[in-house]
This record gives sequence, C-alpha cells and structure tokens, in this order.
Amino acid sequence: MWYSLAIVAAKIETIPEGTVTSPEGFLAGATSAGINKNATGKLDLAVLFSETPCLAAALFTDSRLKAAPVVLSQQRLKKGRAGAVVVNSGCANAFTGEEGYAHAAEMAELAAEGIGLAPEDVLVASTGVIGTPLPMERIRSGLERIVLSGDGGHELAKAIMTTDTIPKEIAVRVKAGDSRFTIGGVAKGSGMIHPDLATLLCFLTTDAALEKGFIKKALKEAVEASFNMVSIDGDTSPNDMVLLMANGRGGSVPADAFEQALEQVCVYLAKSIAGDGEGATKLVEVTVAGAASRLEARTAAKAVVSSSLVMAAVHGADPNWGRIVAAVGRSGVKVEETKLDLSIGEIPVLKAGSPLPFDKRALVQRLKGKEVAISLNFNLGSGQATAWGCDLSEEYVTINSQYMT
Amino acid sequence: MWYSLAIVAAKIETIPEGTVTSPEGFLAGATSAGINKNATGKLDLAVLFSETPCLAAALFTDSRLKAAPVVLSQQRLKKGRAGAVVVNSGCANAFTGEEGYAHAAEMAELAAEGIGLAPEDVLVASTGVIGTPLPMERIRSGLERIVLSGDGGHELAKAIMTTDTIPKEIAVRVKAGDSRFTIGGVAKGSGMIHPDLATLLCFLTTDAALEKGFIKKALKEAVEASFNMVSIDGDTSPNDMVLLMANGRGGSVPADAFEQALEQVCVYLAKSIAGDGEGATKLVEVTVAGAASRLEARTAAKAVVSSSLVMAAVHGADPNWGRIVAAVGRSGVKVEETKLDLSIGEIPVLKAGSPLPFDKRALVQRLKGKEVAISLNFNLGSGQATAWGCDLSEEYVTINSQYMT
Repeated sequence: MWYSLAIVAAKIETIPEGTVTSPEGFLAGATSAGINKNATGKLDLAVLFSETPCLAAALFTDSRLKAAPVVLSQQRLKKGRAGAVVVNSGCANAFTGEEGYAHAAEMAELAAEGIGLAPEDVLVASTGVIGTPLPMERIRSGLERIVLSGDGGHELAKAIMTTDTIPKEIAVRVKAGDSRFTIGGVAKGSGMIHPDLATLLCFLTTDAALEKGFIKKALKEAVEASFNMVSIDGDTSPNDMVLLMANGRGGSVPADAFEQALEQVCVYLAKSIAGDGEGATKLVEVTVAGAASRLEARTAAKAVVSSSLVMAAVHGADPNWGRIVAAVGRSGVKVEETKLDLSIGEIPVLKAGSPLPFDKRALVQRLKGKEVAISLNFNLGSGQATAWGCDLSEEYVTINSQYMT
Repeated sequence: MWYSLAIVAAKIETIPEGTVTSPEGFLAGATSAGINKNATGKLDLAVLFSETPCLAAALFTDSRLKAAPVVLSQQRLKKGRAGAVVVNSGCANAFTGEEGYAHAAEMAELAAEGIGLAPEDVLVASTGVIGTPLPMERIRSGLERIVLSGDGGHELAKAIMTTDTIPKEIAVRVKAGDSRFTIGGVAKGSGMIHPDLATLLCFLTTDAALEKGFIKKALKEAVEASFNMVSIDGDTSPNDMVLLMANGRGGSVPADAFEQALEQVCVYLAKSIAGDGEGATKLVEVTVAGAASRLEARTAAKAVVSSSLVMAAVHGADPNWGRIVAAVGRSGVKVEETKLDLSIGEIPVLKAGSPLPFDKRALVQRLKGKEVAISLNFNLGSGQATAWGCDLSEEYVTINSQYMT
C-alpha cells in the first residue's frame, strides 16, 4: 500500500458521533425544503461552511453529460479555494440546460449572501432525479431557514440521503509527532454507484494545514483506494463529487499521517455506501492478492464485485464459486487456472485451481452473514487490491422500477 | 450498414419451422442423459452432423479462463474444417482442469465413433454449472441413444437450453441470381449474456459453398452486428461459442447475399436471446444514430442496454429518461446535451436536449408492451448501431440467487 512508507507513526482514533463538522471551524445546517414532493418532511437542503477560508480540491464524475452543479463547482474550484458548499437531494439538476446552470448559480448566491461569502467561494452539489428543474421557490425559502452549527454535520448527512437507508458520517482525530488534527466526512451513495465515482456525494473536512499541491494528490490517492473500488450497479451518475476542504486551523501536519487518516475515513465511508446499496442485505468485500500488478488486482476485484451473477448468488447464499471464477476470467487480467486460490467467508474453496472439499452447510451459513469476504490469490505476482459491493436483491429491482412513478 | 453495397438483390425467406438441420445434408439428434440431476427428463445431450465434410469457423469467449470444450474446439478448428459437434447442457465443464479436458476429448471420441468420423473432426460445446466434472457415465450411455435425423435440429435446440424458456431456432432460404442456399441456426442464451459473446452457444449451418478465407470474415461481421450487441447481465461466460459450418452442397453463392442472410439469421437469434433473458418480460431495442462514428454508436447503445437502472425502470414501465441520458453520458462517447434527441416507444421525449411535453399515460402504456424501443440521435455524425437487451426483473435475481442450491 502507498502509505507503507510512513515514517511518522500516526495514532488515529475514531471520534464517537463524529461527523463533517467535527474538525475545528466547520459549521453546517439543513432544512426540509420540500424539493421532492413525495418525501415531505425529509431534510433535503444543507449548507457546509468553514469560518476560515479553505484550500479545497475535488474529484468529479467522468460523465460526458455533467450536471449543472458539477460544471459550476468545477469552474469555481480552479482557484483551489472554497468557503462553503450548498447541497440538495431530491433533484439532480442534471440535463436541465441553461436554466439548470442559472439555478445552480442562484443557489450558490443565496447561500453566499446568508453566510457572508462571495458567491464564487460557494460550491454547489445536487443529487436526485435527472431532467427535472430545481424548484427554486422552495430552495429560496428553504435556505432562509437553515441555521448553521458546529453540530450540524449530522443534519447535513441526513439531508444528502436519497434511497440511502442510513446516514454515512465519521470523524477521526490524529496524533502524529507533535501534530494534532481532525478529519471529518459525510457521504451518500445507494444507487448509480460504480467506479469511477458514483452518485456519490462526499464532503471531507479537515483542520489540518495542507499544501496546495498536496491536497489534490492526497484526495486522489484516497479515492482510488476507497470510492473507486465500490460498485453497486455499474451505473455512474452525472453528479458525482468528492470534495476535501482544509481550513488550516490546526497547523501543519506530516503528509504520511494525513494520507493514512484520509484513506481510513474514505474507506469507512466507501464501505458504508457499499453495505447500504439499494436493496442490499449485506456488504461484500473482494480481495485479490498475487496478481501480476496492482492495476490487475484492482481490475479483477472490481470485476467480481460488479458481477450481477456473483452478487445474486451471494444474496441467495448460493455457494456458486464458478461465477466468481468466470468474472475473474472475463476481467481480462492475467490469471492461471492451476494457480488460483479462492476462499469464501474464509472457507477455502479452491487451492491451485482444484476444488477443495468444504462443509457446504458452514459456507451457506457464512454467506448468510451481514458481511461476506471473497478472497482470491492468483499466485502470480505481488499486486493486491480490495473492492466493496453488496448483494443483488429483488428489492434493488423493485426500488429501481418505481423510482419516478 | 456493411451490406448496403450488395449488388445482387437477394430474396430471403424464413422457412416455417426452420432449424439448424434445414440446410441440405445436416442431421441432428438429442437425448436426455440426466446430466443435471435437478432436471430429469430434459433433453441435455445432442449431436449435430453434416453428411458432407464442412468448412467451419467459430468465435469463442474472450475469457482468460476458457472451459475445456472451448480449448479443445479452438485447437481442432485451426484446420478450418469440422464434421460434427457434440454438445451438452447442465454442466459447463469449465474450471475442471486436466480431467475436464480429458472428458471433452472423450465426448468427441464417443460421438465420432457413433457417426463414423475421426475424433479430430468433432467439436465439443458445453453449458451449465461451472466447476463440476461432467458425469461421464451418463454422457457415454446418453450418446448411445441419440438418433440423428434431418428434423433433429428442433431437439438440439431444446437440448442446449439452460434457464432459457423457449428454444431459439430459425432457417432462411435465399435466392440470389441463379444461386439457391439455406442457412439454419440454433442458439441458447439467458444468463451470462454480454458483449463480447455470452453463454451463448450458437450453431449455424449452411449448404452454401464458401471460400475458406470468407467464412470467418462473414461470421465475424454477422456476430458484431448481432450477438455482440446483446447484453443481459454484464457477465460473459467461459463457454461462449458461435460456430458456422458450411458443407457446400448447394454450390457457390454471391458473398453479399450470404452475408446479408447470415446477419439476418444472427440478428433473429440475438433478439430471441435478449427477449428471453433470465426473468425478462420484454425485449428492449436501443438504437443510436448520428454518433461521431459507428464504434461510438455501438458503445453508447451497449451502455444503455447494459444499464441496470435503465432496465429496472423499463421493467416497472417508469418513464425515467434521465437514466438513459446518464448511461449515454458515462459511456464516454462524444455527445452534446443541446443536440440530443430521445424517443421511448416512438414517443419523442427530448428534442435538442430539451424535454418535450409528452402524454405520460401513453408512454407508460408503451413501456408496458412486450417490445420497447429506445431511440437516440446525437446529431453529430453518421454513426449508427442497434443493441438489444431485456428488462431487469425481480425474477432475474430470484433465478440467480438459487441457481446451484
């Protein structure tokens, strides 16, 4: 792993009830603006704000049809700084043309007014149905009601949920040498989750002081090892955004320690997203070791985690290991039948390509657990990677055949 | 389309009840060998045989873990000739090591003995569960019971079915100038169907006399426009095989007419596979026009047809066009929001990127039909392509969570 060269031993503690406002100087608040008429009362509009100006970097969707808030935020982040984000669920403001862009800009402007920032310092993020204009009247009145507080991260975590069933939030406190800093994060996932990125929204904050060149690099590496290794349904949204804001309140920190802690936060949120995939009943973790390269390990792990057939079998606790092998085969990476080891739920199933006798009842029991581990060793090289996903349930189909109607 | 340059006007007629043994000189037969203990009585072992030696070409799975019958058939086809195929369902003979290869060779040998061919002239194909050895005792006694006949194609079409709900077979009679020839075909699909190829087994026969160099080229082009444009679940199997055998009984034929007729046969079988996907309740046809190139049109059409979210929405007759647009966006091809036209079930939904008012009830009604057409025009160039798939139903998940248990 890239952080194995860390020279400062960092002590990383999870903060109980930690969230995106746990790092010093960050405030947030949310309201129920009624953006999605079918979800009255749900929190759906939120603001995240740093009292001190922030260095910021983000990764956005690769889609060729980017949503208006993505286009706007991407432009504004070119200067590498941001002071706040305004975010809504219930409407993606995607594929909404010129009007959509004007709406995103107005959202930022209204939020900027309320908190006393220049509009250019406010970013925008949206998630929800594609192709529907934002109900601006509701956004305007909603924004007036938002109250920011140092505890508001929890509300924000709820406000960005769509078909997510639980809010996803975490904060860690890090000690490295004489440095002390905190990283917080919230994310939403659920549908349209696939590398690279997803309707994934993720906001990360820290009070560490970071270098301008370092912040983007650290974010990229953490996302590569976390969100980009999650797949739920093979679809990627036009709204994906992972943002990191650093306000420097806590002073400078060792780069290695920061990278390590940031990856830990991102992996936690990525696993929360995988385990809470639409209709998911369990988290599936696929580990590939012994591949010819790290890239090949990543490709193979993602192929297994993206396989509908594997994930339907996991759902039914069906020990159909042939599908895992088939997914590896079609991934295109170098693999040799006679060298392949496979275990499911820590029960060895294949050794050097030969099926091992296993206790089927015990394996089915493992597959029925809330977390299922699939481990492959190609025994070819030193490449390794981990990917996360969830089982494919009838409920996934039901949710997604009735989303709009 | 590549056949638009045809200079001989070919008259292509579908033969009522046509099948793979409709071309002159082809015989087939099948039996119930009991390969899958859970499906007693089902036809599961078959032989296809040409009375006259054939030129033959095939396309095989790209999987890096190819099943034993694929490895064997690929070797034997290097000489470009084959006289027969022996095929079973119920067991894929994949990931079965040295023993699997010996079993495939023995299957060919037993079939060769029965019909009086050299073993090297017999190909083998298998489909079913991965990782289980072939029950050779049952195969041996089964092969002794098979009776070949000129009508046996129908039995073969049934014998290769796994979770397929209907046999897929067709034959066409072609007149082109003074030439007369017939092409027949059978296929099986259902699960693990994805470009490129699928647990797709397809056997094509013709009495046309073809050139050795031409047969492979014609097959490739027909497969590109048909089977490689079908997606059901994004998985590809280690057993895929599309075989074309030409025994030359009908004399030589115009290349254009043959290519045109072969594509028609393959498109028919490909659509049958798409419409009979596991759990499918409808066939979905996605057409992309006006793309920057044919390749980009293919990529975009396949992205839409492969989208779980789009296909779940189609299942629920949910007019969620945003998901179609999102799938196009993530496909990576060149597309501009302000130029995109989209219609669903022939009802225009977007024109130049702007949502059109449409009768929602009428659109829902169209989505409830047995065939749903999704048409996109990028208005950028002249690239066009069609892809086929099926809706994603709860039933797909149910089937695939209980396949082995």
